[in-house]
Amino acid sequence: MFEVIGWDEISRVLPTLDLVGAIEEGFVAYSQGNAHVAPVSELRIPHGELHIKSGYISGDSSFVVKAACGFYGNPAKGLPSSNGLMLLFDSETGVPTCLLLDEGRLTDIRTAVAGVIAAKFLAPDPIFAIGIIGTGTQARLQAQYLLKAKRANRLFVYGRNAHAVAVYQRDMSREAVEVIACNTPAAVAANANLLVTTTPSRSPLLNFDDIAPGTHITAVGADSPVKNELDPAILHKANRIVVDSLQQCSAHGELKHALAVGSIPPERIVELGDVIAARKQGRISGTDITVADLTGVAVQDIEIARAVFAAVKAMRT
Amino acid sequence: MFEVIGWDEISRVLPTLDLVGAIEEGFVAYSQGNAHVAPVSELRIPHGELHIKSGYISGDSSFVVKAACGFYGNPAKGLPSSNGLMLLFDSETGVPTCLLLDEGRLTDIRTAVAGVIAAKFLAPDPIFAIGIIGTGTQARLQAQYLLKAKRANRLFVYGRNAHAVAVYQRDMSREAVEVIACNTPAAVAANANLLVTTTPSRSPLLNFDDIAPGTHITAVGADSPVKNELDPAILHKANRIVVDSLQQCSAHGELKHALAVGSIPPERIVELGDVIAARKQGRISGTDITVADLTGVAVQDIEIARAVFAAVKAMRT
Repeated sequence: MFEVIGWDEISRVLPTLDLVGAIEEGFVAYSQGNAHVAPVSELRIPHGELHIKSGYISGDSSFVVKAACGFYGNPAKGLPSSNGLMLLFDSETGVPTCLLLDEGRLTDIRTAVAGVIAAKFLAPDPIFAIGIIGTGTQARLQAQYLLKAKRANRLFVYGRNAHAVAVYQRDMSREAVEVIACNTPAAVAANANLLVTTTPSRSPLLNFDDIAPGTHITAVGADSPVKNELDPAILHKANRIVVDSLQQCSAHGELKHALAVGSIPPERIVELGDVIAARKQGRISGTDITVADLTGVAVQDIEIARAVFAAVKAMRT
Repeated sequence: MFEVIGWDEISRVLPTLDLVGAIEEGFVAYSQGNAHVAPVSELRIPHGELHIKSGYISGDSSFVVKAACGFYGNPAKGLPSSNGLMLLFDSETGVPTCLLLDEGRLTDIRTAVAGVIAAKFLAPDPIFAIGIIGTGTQARLQAQYLLKAKRANRLFVYGRNAHAVAVYQRDMSREAVEVIACNTPAAVAANANLLVTTTPSRSPLLNFDDIAPGTHITAVGADSPVKNELDPAILHKANRIVVDSLQQCSAHGELKHALAVGSIPPERIVELGDVIAARKQGRISGTDITVADLTGVAVQDIEIARAVFAAVKAMRT
């Protein structure tokens, strides 16, 4: 029986899911070579682009296809620029089992959950404040998911657009946190020891001198070779760089930009899945500077799609 | 409003569609460079494989993604080895508009329709009999669609498996045609002047000496580099070779095997879209030997998906 699941049902089951646990398993499978991921297929059309990812984790009963659209003229039409869906197929027979019409939102959520996982293994303790660079969808979701998972009662934010910052402050204040706007990224870094950069910037927003010892930085903005939010010196001087995928981050993450200016001792760069599985160390001391470079891997899509599908099926019966 | 369309509705509208006209337009767009097609993405998993094609024809209101599964252990479980679905998206906004749960059957049908188009432009007149090599899905669909489009009252068939041939004879006799089983592919070729080869054979089934002047051969079986149904000499001596895609057929069609043993004058090889658009000539004389090498292109999927979606929407309202 093929199931079509819309955003209404998806959003109802989301709060019941252990997405952190599920996506941790995905990262571990990825880093242990148990994930089969097809090359991303990209179709460019005049008003936008389509990316298709697909993958399978050894032993799973399903494999997953994700289609994600980016149409950058949509906001002028009152539509979000992103859209998309996920499909599940039975891995024994290839029979399609489920369509998740998530409008691309599960991709945003799995990205925020990866930020929570990075913070779980790398952030200092205690976190005295969270700092967010950017005011878009990830700036909101990263903060919301981190606040749910971590005790912090102050949120510092920087954005280029004053109106967007004001709206962000208003919206985030609903999360029972004090939201303080800063005039520069450096001021955010001076006030928080867990930083998340979420912008599509093509030049560094944070410099090494901005970063205090003991800080963890998660960078989720760089998903193409031209994007770059962190001064390469931050990665060169960081005690630990944790990447979701060594291959992807070397090709189009913050790591790419850092490697372009000089080599980094390979033992300082580890995959998140290996840190989760305790095969490699993350943060060692309270004064370490750590960086998580997250570019997004198909195992996150597989895990969130499987978790949502299972929960909706259970809810329906 | 997103629409989910199952095989029931698809099969109801199919007889009302001008698939020949629609798919001819697709081939013309392809050969004129008006089709944008993403590279095929392939995911291999332990029990099968998934192929994803996507494409867009300039000016269309939709773009199309097709997922096709091949699970070769399925027949032992009482399931067809092929499955699949198609998705349509709005080409202005990227919003998903429709899922066609066709179970992979529209792929079979668009392949048969390409055979009808090849025969329309290349077969001799009159066709005194149709000859089919193979007894599988394409052996049936090619015959059915050709019989609908062309006047012929005799069908010669060759298959390796006597039982499969008997079942084929019984089933095809329902199409108001006399079905004659032959003991060799050569005997089929001796009795028919429109031949279709539909097998996954890895060594030639038809030799040049089997082919009488005036014959047209459509080969649809070779969809991977190792498959080969026609003696390379047939292509070398043919007056005209028509390919759906010069690029694909050179890489994994009958053409590939023929080019491996020697060059063929380029002016004898033309794309089907150019023949349809009358930019290139197909059959010139009644004694020409012509070959159509069909490997399947995404424009066929785009056109059949669009046609089905439009007809189902009209039927529902």
